[in-house]
Amino acid sequence: MSNIAGVEAFRAAEWVRSFRPSAINEMLRLTARPGVVSLALGLPAPDLFPAEVLADCAARAITDDPRALQYGHPQPRVRAQIAEMMRQRGVECRPEQVVMTSGAQQALSILARVFLEPGGQVMAERLTYNGLACVLEPLRPELLLVPTSREHGIDVEAVEDALAAGAAPAFLYVVPEGHNPLGVSLREESRARLVQTARRYGVPIVEDDAYGFLHYGGAPLPALRALDDRWVFYVGSFSKILAPASRVGWIVAPEEMVPALLAAKDACDLDMNTLGQRVVSAFLAGSHLDAHLARLRAEYRARRDLMDTCLRLHFPAEARWRIPASGLFFWVELPPEVDCAALLARAVETERVAFVPGHAYAADGSRYGSHCMRLNFSFSPPEEIEKGVAALGRALRAHLNGEAPPPAEPNGSGS
Amino acid sequence: MSNIAGVEAFRAAEWVRSFRPSAINEMLRLTARPGVVSLALGLPAPDLFPAEVLADCAARAITDDPRALQYGHPQPRVRAQIAEMMRQRGVECRPEQVVMTSGAQQALSILARVFLEPGGQVMAERLTYNGLACVLEPLRPELLLVPTSREHGIDVEAVEDALAAGAAPAFLYVVPEGHNPLGVSLREESRARLVQTARRYGVPIVEDDAYGFLHYGGAPLPALRALDDRWVFYVGSFSKILAPASRVGWIVAPEEMVPALLAAKDACDLDMNTLGQRVVSAFLAGSHLDAHLARLRAEYRARRDLMDTCLRLHFPAEARWRIPASGLFFWVELPPEVDCAALLARAVETERVAFVPGHAYAADGSRYGSHCMRLNFSFSPPEEIEKGVAALGRALRAHLNGEAPPPAEPNGSGS
Repeated sequence: MSNIAGVEAFRAAEWVRSFRPSAINEMLRLTARPGVVSLALGLPAPDLFPAEVLADCAARAITDDPRALQYGHPQPRVRAQIAEMMRQRGVECRPEQVVMTSGAQQALSILARVFLEPGGQVMAERLTYNGLACVLEPLRPELLLVPTSREHGIDVEAVEDALAAGAAPAFLYVVPEGHNPLGVSLREESRARLVQTARRYGVPIVEDDAYGFLHYGGAPLPALRALDDRWVFYVGSFSKILAPASRVGWIVAPEEMVPALLAAKDACDLDMNTLGQRVVSAFLAGSHLDAHLARLRAEYRARRDLMDTCLRLHFPAEARWRIPASGLFFWVELPPEVDCAALLARAVETERVAFVPGHAYAADGSRYGSHCMRLNFSFSPPEEIEKGVAALGRALRAHLNGEAPPPAEPNGSGS
Repeated sequence: MSNIAGVEAFRAAEWVRSFRPSAINEMLRLTARPGVVSLALGLPAPDLFPAEVLADCAARAITDDPRALQYGHPQPRVRAQIAEMMRQRGVECRPEQVVMTSGAQQALSILARVFLEPGGQVMAERLTYNGLACVLEPLRPELLLVPTSREHGIDVEAVEDALAAGAAPAFLYVVPEGHNPLGVSLREESRARLVQTARRYGVPIVEDDAYGFLHYGGAPLPALRALDDRWVFYVGSFSKILAPASRVGWIVAPEEMVPALLAAKDACDLDMNTLGQRVVSAFLAGSHLDAHLARLRAEYRARRDLMDTCLRLHFPAEARWRIPASGLFFWVELPPEVDCAALLARAVETERVAFVPGHAYAADGSRYGSHCMRLNFSFSPPEEIEKGVAALGRALRAHLNGEAPPPAEPNGSGS
């Protein structure tokens, strides 16, 4: 029986007939209320968008080249620019190995199409980017989940054990740098061992490096793709480092797989040059990226450190977190009895602050991680971070003290 | 065995392992040689792009609204603007029924995901848009093909017969207006009967109306969606009427199916506001579209009429074509012994003119239609149309007279 009224009459695909709008999305709607400080979504800081430069890049891209508005494959220039950028991630690749996508999400969608048969398996961390579930929803693979931790990231030994025991996933999805939601970066020896394991068992690794250019310490560890140019399929994106609305992402892949990736791209929406690609390419050609990244890193580092300070100040001693070396998130572990879904409802109602409960990232859709929260430090300006963490601390203490939350206001707006 | 060297090692999906880059694409590469007059691809006229206005729209969209570069769902404004535009196609719909897509191609991809199970069936015309094959490649449905003709379009009786005999396609794909490649528009009684048939058998119609706004006579017939708001899933696009690189298309669907369509969109690349959507929306808000459409229609009508005159002048008496009332293409039927693949090679080599051989649109990948050619009249300026059709007439006469083509020049460039 379908979960959407009126859909029964259509002989839709099986996944549609059993599809139910996610409870998490309902919950996240809470976070979008006006006047709520959002430490929830993984949005870049709007005040740091280089809007004037991008507006100029867009106008010039359209008027400077008559082909800018026409059908045409992605420009060789943007692929070469991305190959050049990849050196910052320790990766040597050729422009011919770069496949342009509509953000990292489409990259995952294309890779899933290329590797996954109906009824196949996908290996992923127990806590991982929730957009993976969106990609896999219509494909319904069997999920092989491996443990992951806020200290060390993916449990490489568990990956090895599962593969040794005969698991044959179509691919392994992993976020080795600036993990979403855990904020952890995989250690050097784990990276080497993970890649060796993939090679040994012939399992492609889909490396989601959406946060790889946002690091706040010394030089970051090279991407997995730097360790293997055959079994690692690298996914990158300009969403976090330039502008999400550009919808420009990319895959770095072995050249022999590029024709199949392009065929999957054609199946999605044609492998076409887009306005977004032109704008990004013009931005890169103007040598603006390095300065912009430096500015993002400095500002996000300051916001990260501020959030850490505020957490020490306002959160109870039982709360546990680590300072992320890259990415956009703190992962805060609370005592096991805390129900973060209930805490979120209270925090939004009484304190006007929002976060994402940890089980939003449980790859199996369970309540795993429900005593944890993901806090974003990139979106809100410093004064909002201070205000938000203090408010969240109050909500948390009240929750831990067992105080009943005040009755919800029907329209959600305060007096 | 795979057709791409080195792919065997990857346990890719079945469709990848048997995937072979299309022979048609190889053939179409011929048409992109410098100095060749292209009557081949279905490109809009680059000289008619409103580049200055679009550049201004892009720059303003980015600087006027801080949310323009951020993550966010498509603006309510653009969905309302499209709902308003749909009146020109005789369609009443609400903004809530409009799903934004990355061009018409992604709309087809999304609809296929929602309706098609692995191993399911799709009904289509024997000659149809070749991008449908790209969409279906990874899904490998059984194709149920129905006859179609340059006089009347899809054979509605054949559709009825197949459904009455028990065919149960996931959907029927049809281009009722300005058919690609046939140029035909479905008659009023056929439209009514097709929609009744879909309703009777519960088969969704995917109506590709990419050319519906480009008509050259009086008022065009309303879209199929005007006749049924439940079983017709309308697909529209700004690619042909504004700018392909905007990558903005849309679906008009029954509201109860919108959540599933959005989930499929999320699976593809997230349902996000894009720069392209902002630019299109700003263009529409500036009330530029009607004047631009009037200009396109006047110019394309003139080019169409010129091509008809040139065909009468330069093509042999055995050639048959009709003047298209909408869309961008002439379909020319030649004597059955003509092999248009060979003719194309000759035309490019000796006469520097290109077209698309008819069998590029054979939905079953056969040589059906190989004695026909599709000629585009929108891309080339009038003097190129005159030159191109005259050159094609010479190549055709030489081919019909059995003259051997001159030996191909190895590098393809003339002296």
